[in-house]
Amino acid sequence: MLHVVILGFGNIGSNLCNALHEESQVSVVQVFNRNLIKLPNNLKSIPFTSNISEIKKADIYIIAIPDDAIADFSATLPFNDKLVVHTSGSVPMQALDGKNKQGVFYPLQTFTKNNLVDFSEIPVCIEAEEETDLKLLRTLGEHISKHVTVVSSEERKTLHLAAVFVNNFVNYMYHISEDILKENNLDFELLKPLIAETANKIKRLSPKQAQTGPAKRNDVKTIENHLHLLKDSPYKKVYQQLTKAIQDTYGKKL
Amino acid sequence: MLHVVILGFGNIGSNLCNALHEESQVSVVQVFNRNLIKLPNNLKSIPFTSNISEIKKADIYIIAIPDDAIADFSATLPFNDKLVVHTSGSVPMQALDGKNKQGVFYPLQTFTKNNLVDFSEIPVCIEAEEETDLKLLRTLGEHISKHVTVVSSEERKTLHLAAVFVNNFVNYMYHISEDILKENNLDFELLKPLIAETANKIKRLSPKQAQTGPAKRNDVKTIENHLHLLKDSPYKKVYQQLTKAIQDTYGKKL
Repeated sequence: MLHVVILGFGNIGSNLCNALHEESQVSVVQVFNRNLIKLPNNLKSIPFTSNISEIKKADIYIIAIPDDAIADFSATLPFNDKLVVHTSGSVPMQALDGKNKQGVFYPLQTFTKNNLVDFSEIPVCIEAEEETDLKLLRTLGEHISKHVTVVSSEERKTLHLAAVFVNNFVNYMYHISEDILKENNLDFELLKPLIAETANKIKRLSPKQAQTGPAKRNDVKTIENHLHLLKDSPYKKVYQQLTKAIQDTYGKKL
Repeated sequence: MLHVVILGFGNIGSNLCNALHEESQVSVVQVFNRNLIKLPNNLKSIPFTSNISEIKKADIYIIAIPDDAIADFSATLPFNDKLVVHTSGSVPMQALDGKNKQGVFYPLQTFTKNNLVDFSEIPVCIEAEEETDLKLLRTLGEHISKHVTVVSSEERKTLHLAAVFVNNFVNYMYHISEDILKENNLDFELLKPLIAETANKIKRLSPKQAQTGPAKRNDVKTIENHLHLLKDSPYKKVYQQLTKAIQDTYGKKL
């Protein structure tokens, strides 16, 4: 049985807590959160504390707090020589205080507190200094996910950068299109099947094979119509730059 | 029984043909394609011609060819006063030659020839000059889709522009991230669950609610790390501009 303490009950912490709590081979012995919170009903059997001096003994301590708080928080933990991991895509493992054994347990997914996702399909990127710690993290990961991979801090940085493009920037494209439709009293619902299929296509085609549209086929007339429609919209620049970038990628110039 | 001729057997034409052919209330009486092609097995009962003078009689003629060929092609049709519609998001209805009754039957989706999609969820945007033609297009649309909407040529332009953002530009974000990972010998598979969930989130949250990431939370340190990682990559400008646009949208400046 693996004993785990979860430190921080935000988007990642709560999702991770749910997934681990369901596993018979894992015991979430405690949830710590800086502010007093009420655990949801299905987790209320787990002891909770907001007092850092009351943290219980465990095999693995999982820090799930904002990136810029990880280093300082890890230094305030009142114990040594334990395995302490963080869950961040962009923070190096060595940011964790050296008084404990360092590691990373990074689930590559976007989490929302009130929406639990199926953990089994989420890639979990692990890292540790010591082979035994890596083994422990692999065991923990494989209890909840089919895809556990060893990823170095350098590689994780690159993964996180790529994730910004497919998650944050993609979502911003959704935002732009909703905004454009709203201004014209058109319903964003109309685009939802297209959004779903665009993501779905990537399961069977490479993005390069799936690329279509006026920029790809150098359809100057449609591009000009779109720029005209965008008038003095703040999104005009985004349209122009992405169109140019696609043309450069596919070897066609305006 | 509605009799339909499909003119052009590319991505849209073939998908539309499949969906219509399955309907007992619709008869696809012919497929025309400029070049000789072989219809797939499930459609081989449909007469085929590549000779424009042999086009059969029908209630609705559906042009499914590249945007810039629609106007000229519609002028070469050897008949008058029939209902002729195109399937394009960006071409005005009036681009069709006036010798026939004009209309639009625009399925708002991305199509690939060898991948048939479920038509019932696809919004079909219809337009016609005459009320009776509009009614006919609605009847046709409702045979294959749950979402048939009357959309003017002006509105359709805006829809198509918004579709470029959620389809072409989103796919380009996938392309960029695959490229970044490839250069670092990392597997694009790792991002696929994130891609799926990012699209999935939009079913329950508005893009504004779903927006996360370093740009949204003005995490200058992570943004700088990412720019450093991108070095002299052609994608650096895209990263910078989208980051700035997100910051402008959410009211935070660097």
